[in-house]
Amino acid sequence: MKRFFTLLIACVALSMTASAQLKFVDATELGIHGHTQKTDKSPYYRFDHTPYEGFSKGIINHSKCPSGLYVVFKTNSSQISASWENAPKRMGDNMTGISQHGLDLYIKKDGKWRFAAVGRVSTLPENNKRTKSLIKNLAEGEKECLLYLPGWCQLTKLEIGVDEEATIEGIPSPFRHKVIVHGSSITHGASASRPAMNYPALMSRNLGIDFINFGFSGQCKMQPQFLEFLKTCEADAFVFDAFSNPSEKQIKERLNNFVEELVKAHPGKPLIFIQSPIDQDSDFDTKKYAARMSLTKTAAKMMKVLSKKHKDVYFLAVPNVLGTDSTIDNSHPTDLGFDRFLKAYQPKIARILKKYGIK
Amino acid sequence: MKRFFTLLIACVALSMTASAQLKFVDATELGIHGHTQKTDKSPYYRFDHTPYEGFSKGIINHSKCPSGLYVVFKTNSSQISASWENAPKRMGDNMTGISQHGLDLYIKKDGKWRFAAVGRVSTLPENNKRTKSLIKNLAEGEKECLLYLPGWCQLTKLEIGVDEEATIEGIPSPFRHKVIVHGSSITHGASASRPAMNYPALMSRNLGIDFINFGFSGQCKMQPQFLEFLKTCEADAFVFDAFSNPSEKQIKERLNNFVEELVKAHPGKPLIFIQSPIDQDSDFDTKKYAARMSLTKTAAKMMKVLSKKHKDVYFLAVPNVLGTDSTIDNSHPTDLGFDRFLKAYQPKIARILKKYGIK
Repeated sequence: MKRFFTLLIACVALSMTASAQLKFVDATELGIHGHTQKTDKSPYYRFDHTPYEGFSKGIINHSKCPSGLYVVFKTNSSQISASWENAPKRMGDNMTGISQHGLDLYIKKDGKWRFAAVGRVSTLPENNKRTKSLIKNLAEGEKECLLYLPGWCQLTKLEIGVDEEATIEGIPSPFRHKVIVHGSSITHGASASRPAMNYPALMSRNLGIDFINFGFSGQCKMQPQFLEFLKTCEADAFVFDAFSNPSEKQIKERLNNFVEELVKAHPGKPLIFIQSPIDQDSDFDTKKYAARMSLTKTAAKMMKVLSKKHKDVYFLAVPNVLGTDSTIDNSHPTDLGFDRFLKAYQPKIARILKKYGIK
Repeated sequence: MKRFFTLLIACVALSMTASAQLKFVDATELGIHGHTQKTDKSPYYRFDHTPYEGFSKGIINHSKCPSGLYVVFKTNSSQISASWENAPKRMGDNMTGISQHGLDLYIKKDGKWRFAAVGRVSTLPENNKRTKSLIKNLAEGEKECLLYLPGWCQLTKLEIGVDEEATIEGIPSPFRHKVIVHGSSITHGASASRPAMNYPALMSRNLGIDFINFGFSGQCKMQPQFLEFLKTCEADAFVFDAFSNPSEKQIKERLNNFVEELVKAHPGKPLIFIQSPIDQDSDFDTKKYAARMSLTKTAAKMMKVLSKKHKDVYFLAVPNVLGTDSTIDNSHPTDLGFDRFLKAYQPKIARILKKYGIK
């Protein structure tokens, strides 16, 4: 019996030490970055849809996801944990759980952001609250940390845990300027393996420029509501993956007006349109392939006229940019697909931005 | 009322036409390939664990997964569907649902296997039965199809659906020889995006050689039971990812005997050991990193002696083969990681195999 009590006391002491080891800080105190526009509705919303009537339910849901948002802080802690919650949501099968509901931590090393750890999740929608250790046994000294938020769920709480005696402090975004990237699920991040592997996030780390993720899975169709919102956005440049979601008919009806209105709203700022990377896929489905080829040709033809007319409108097209075997489902690039996409497009985008002093 | 009946009859006729459009053939009639050893327990088991006492529950479960197994057939159908069921299993967060429970279809084009479509799934474990269209509107004529089975579940039924009037016939495996690849979760396929993107499957398509997936997530520790099984396996060569799962102590205790016994059992056949690709990871976790470096050095030192002693034992080591940003969780390569892994190792493996007439 005496032994039992000794063991019990030891266990209680151990658990007290363990829980006493960490203190949690609300992420909003450190600062959330990567918004097109901040809203007082929630720090984890990408924008406030309410002033714009007629947005679809899908867009409204996506507007509440923190896709592309990130927290930057410095700490001398020996470990980093996180406690986060999201609205229950069933996961899709063409992305990982980590990409959809998880966290993605980078730490600066030799002046570069380097992948450190992920915040793991359950794939069951009801397991939507968790506290997880991200990394332990960090070297002594102060580290700069960049934590990417989940791509495909509504975040309702996020706290960062560090050693109780450690310092933790929000620091400004390490990325310069503000370039809004508006696009489809491909821009949104499907099917990158983790929240930090979508192409706007990759370009931000590669070029040091803040590429804001304004991707809306399946929903980027140059709708008048998006146009109105984008006209009001403060940004130094815009990149558009505008031809992955709309039908050819919608492109014919909407593209000219979309470009003309944006040129008027953002005079002297570069508007860079990219050909959809899924131009060469689906080629065993002859009907889908023919429709995709026709749409691609129409978009290219219209963009040639528009980019000739407006000196700040650009159209970038690299045919068959993904090659073979680099999508998960004939639409969404894997990390290999995004690697190929960026090898082709990033230098071209960087060259254009440089002309405008965005570097 | 008359209108209602006309509509009802039209709907019934339409649904009859739709269901009459397809006929389903059991995959076992077409032939299942890619086993180390066929067992009468199930055509979808990778091997029969029962003669070997002492295998862990994890290994027994994995032995019942059809990871790396595939069906090859020719058909002149305009579409391909599948109806498949698996034992309910909760999905992991560091892989896609398609990789875990889905199907992956390749079609031969210009003499090469080319990705065509996937069989989609629900990520909820209870949704374990489904009938899905994989691809439609195929060009006329006979196609050769290669269908990869799910990597991380127990398959209990698989039927292939084609046009009712179409022909469908199993054909022999298109891959020559038989090279068994025994390894960890990395060999098993974590975290490739689809069932066809693990490195044994990639090497099979790239080299035309049948690399048999004998990966056991978290379980490849040179256990005596695996040794006994591998000694009895008929194969032309073996590749080992043997240093990702065991502890350094286990390597010290087991490696020499493992190699000596296999050399005796398979005289004159190449035994190719590969350094674990996770040699350079976890470097922000100083403890994990130090342990991993120590283990890597020990394995390399022992392998140097063994490969000097035995002319058919090889050790391949490419330091930092994954670079940065190409794992999902500091252990498991994404498709980008596997691309880097293969760029480094495939030519070396192919060169060794060629010396033995395996080409």
